[in-house]
Amino acid sequence: MNLRDIACRSNLALAESGLVFGTFGNLSIVDRAAGVFAIKPSGVPYAELTPDKIVVVSLESGAPVEGALRPSSDTPTHLELYRAFDCGAIVHTHSEYATMFAQARTPIGCMGTTHADYFRGDIPVTRAMTALEVGADYEANTGKVIVETFRTAALSAEEVPAVLVANHAPFAWGPDAAKAIENARILEFVARMDWRARLVAPNAPRPDQFLIDTHYFRKHGTSAYYGQK
Amino acid sequence: MNLRDIACRSNLALAESGLVFGTFGNLSIVDRAAGVFAIKPSGVPYAELTPDKIVVVSLESGAPVEGALRPSSDTPTHLELYRAFDCGAIVHTHSEYATMFAQARTPIGCMGTTHADYFRGDIPVTRAMTALEVGADYEANTGKVIVETFRTAALSAEEVPAVLVANHAPFAWGPDAAKAIENARILEFVARMDWRARLVAPNAPRPDQFLIDTHYFRKHGTSAYYGQK
Amino acid sequence: MNLRDIACRSNLALAESGLVFGTFGNLSIVDRAAGVFAIKPSGVPYAELTPDKIVVVSLESGAPVEGALRPSSDTPTHLELYRAFDCGAIVHTHSEYATMFAQARTPIGCMGTTHADYFRGDIPVTRAMTALEVGADYEANTGKVIVETFRTAALSAEEVPAVLVANHAPFAWGPDAAKAIENARILEFVARMDWRARLVAPNAPRPDQFLIDTHYFRKHGTSAYYGQK
Amino acid sequence: MNLRDIACRSNLALAESGLVFGTFGNLSIVDRAAGVFAIKPSGVPYAELTPDKIVVVSLESGAPVEGALRPSSDTPTHLELYRAFDCGAIVHTHSEYATMFAQARTPIGCMGTTHADYFRGDIPVTRAMTALEVGADYEANTGKVIVETFRTAALSAEEVPAVLVANHAPFAWGPDAAKAIENARILEFVARMDWRARLVAPNAPRPDQFLIDTHYFRKHGTSAYYGQK
Repeated sequence: MNLRDIACRSNLALAESGLVFGTFGNLSIVDRAAGVFAIKPSGVPYAELTPDKIVVVSLESGAPVEGALRPSSDTPTHLELYRAFDCGAIVHTHSEYATMFAQARTPIGCMGTTHADYFRGDIPVTRAMTALEVGADYEANTGKVIVETFRTAALSAEEVPAVLVANHAPFAWGPDAAKAIENARILEFVARMDWRARLVAPNAPRPDQFLIDTHYFRKHGTSAYYGQK
Repeated sequence: MNLRDIACRSNLALAESGLVFGTFGNLSIVDRAAGVFAIKPSGVPYAELTPDKIVVVSLESGAPVEGALRPSSDTPTHLELYRAFDCGAIVHTHSEYATMFAQARTPIGCMGTTHADYFRGDIPVTRAMTALEVGADYEANTGKVIVETFRTAALSAEEVPAVLVANHAPFAWGPDAAKAIENARILEFVARMDWRARLVAPNAPRPDQFLIDTHYFRKHGTSAYYGQK
Repeated sequence: MNLRDIACRSNLALAESGLVFGTFGNLSIVDRAAGVFAIKPSGVPYAELTPDKIVVVSLESGAPVEGALRPSSDTPTHLELYRAFDCGAIVHTHSEYATMFAQARTPIGCMGTTHADYFRGDIPVTRAMTALEVGADYEANTGKVIVETFRTAALSAEEVPAVLVANHAPFAWGPDAAKAIENARILEFVARMDWRARLVAPNAPRPDQFLIDTHYFRKHGTSAYYGQK
Repeated sequence: MNLRDIACRSNLALAESGLVFGTFGNLSIVDRAAGVFAIKPSGVPYAELTPDKIVVVSLESGAPVEGALRPSSDTPTHLELYRAFDCGAIVHTHSEYATMFAQARTPIGCMGTTHADYFRGDIPVTRAMTALEVGADYEANTGKVIVETFRTAALSAEEVPAVLVANHAPFAWGPDAAKAIENARILEFVARMDWRARLVAPNAPRPDQFLIDTHYFRKHGTSAYYGQK
């Protein structure tokens, strides 16, 4: 399967995940050797998506190099993230609870092992973008403010593969499309739980970092012991 | 397809949208050239709806001109809206979260880009209706209080194509039936998010107007660049 | 169809309504001319329910007169309600939001027209039952405390066809099984909306009684004008 | 059917219950006469689960005695519970509301008869585990802290067949796999109701112990009178 086939199939998998509403949301995958990434076309309903409608974009120039349709309007955001983060696929959704946290300008707190199995800490929220950043190159600047968020807080994009863009919505990523979708699904799942816990127990103690690390590294890295070898 | 066929099919699409509960809800579409609109009959279960049961009503007199059944009891509300607003279709539902905001007498706040992609600002709530307004011509007066709400606040019915009637439920509209249903669905979606954000972060800063406008005009008007040309 | 057939079919309709969880819940219908009511047997999964398993109970003695199985353990509650209220069918569920209001000892407020279309006022909660009432004839006493609630507050069981038993769950009723189930469904629907409105706007003004009455009587009584003649 | 067949079928039933998200969750059943229990392998998707993939573990040594795959990483927790509690099956899930209560470090309160029909009191939360307990033999220590919770509070594991592990998730158990799953389902159901009741009525009076006992013993023990003999 070539890149556009995988991108098409993965965008359809995203649509089936329940994370996207209407035409909100898109997924891209990168082929770093070829210097390109493949992304959903803008505003095309998932039901009508076929591999030939997928747009291939140059990592260097940001310009489409394959496909007749316009790429997702969020393409420049994906481009900035691929340039800054070492990931293989990026998912953008307006999934309900994660988007709501973005609107509430509130990080999704790492309050338990479900979260720590996937993310080694809170999911950060970007700062609000300025009038200048929104006024021109808005989508590229969205990517830049995400990267700034990780740099400023010294966060690892590998250990925390998701972000909330203030008053907008989440982006999640991973080594491949399946992992990026899984991260987006878990993000929504832990967002639901953190929201409810905050309402009923706003002063609940946070889990110890050693509990978070034990769970994170039970599933990630060289000493992982979850699953089959 | 004639007006009654489209109205029937669109009412069934509304029923499948998950926005209506039981027989609550109705949809109408207007043919301004012909001076009529077509609307669901009153209290007929969606499962039994056929084009011949759709009622056609005169925009001038408000009287049925085609169809043997009684039109929706909300027909006079639709009539007032068609007379005041330049729209092609109107949807009335008791969708859960939007109706709840109507009961809470609380506008649905424009707290993010999901909302701004469809509505250029908060969804307003009408004032409570008086005993006189409720006591006679109740449904026509419901339409009038909606129009008053937009006039008083100098809102554009095109830019904010939805309203909450106090202690009642939402109405949404659009250039055609599909867009009106889509607006009603997004209304419910953003209502869910705003409700949750208000609970967890009652003092969250609102998004800047330039962010709202960028998203609204990315999808509407002559400089829109979302989707395919 | 005889009484047991209708009771079986109606219990299955209740199971499909999404209001019952596991074996929680039961429905009965009365034949006042025959002096009996038919009710679900105790603890039988809905999937295994057949008309011959339905139990017919005497309105006078409260004893089973037809059927080999034990009737629902809530049978004495149904009996008390049939004796006191002029209704044709009774539904008991542990539907989530209504049961939660019963646990919260909080009436479901009539906050809008959706509620008023079915119930002419708040859904009351019984007082807590005493040790004596719980210690013997518990289920009959449950019915008695419901009747007491309506008598004490001078409520009409016809106009408010539902109640919350404190720390237990709702009962709803109606002229026939379909209406009783519909009332139970609307009860759950308005419970969800009232719960959410209370959280976001605890001080929201209540709707005027004339609005409630207009909606209630639009659908009930001799001046009703909703639906087809 | 042998133990691995039942364990496989029961894990699939658990997957269909809606309580597990992704590969979170596992179920084991014990054969005390044979001195073994059968448990889900680690990280295997439910869709790929077959009886030969189930791992059989010795109650005495805790070591696998049958099956080529690694057992669930939570196996030592199950082992501790089988050693301390007289139960036939154990279910671990990350079901949303119960897990959220674990993150909120808040017991699920016994606020009504739905809860009391299955659990004779609140569902306790363990204390947080120490760095030492998490650092080595983490999963066995999870079991030990559960047992400690029951011992310290003098709770009966038979009367309260579930627990919340702080910042982790619930475990539930029962005399057999079907009952353990049912307990896990009711746990989630009452968690949803208690969470909502706490938000809307934080000071609601708790039900009297005699009401709880009447319901609990209506379904359990020698004087039970619910269901068919």
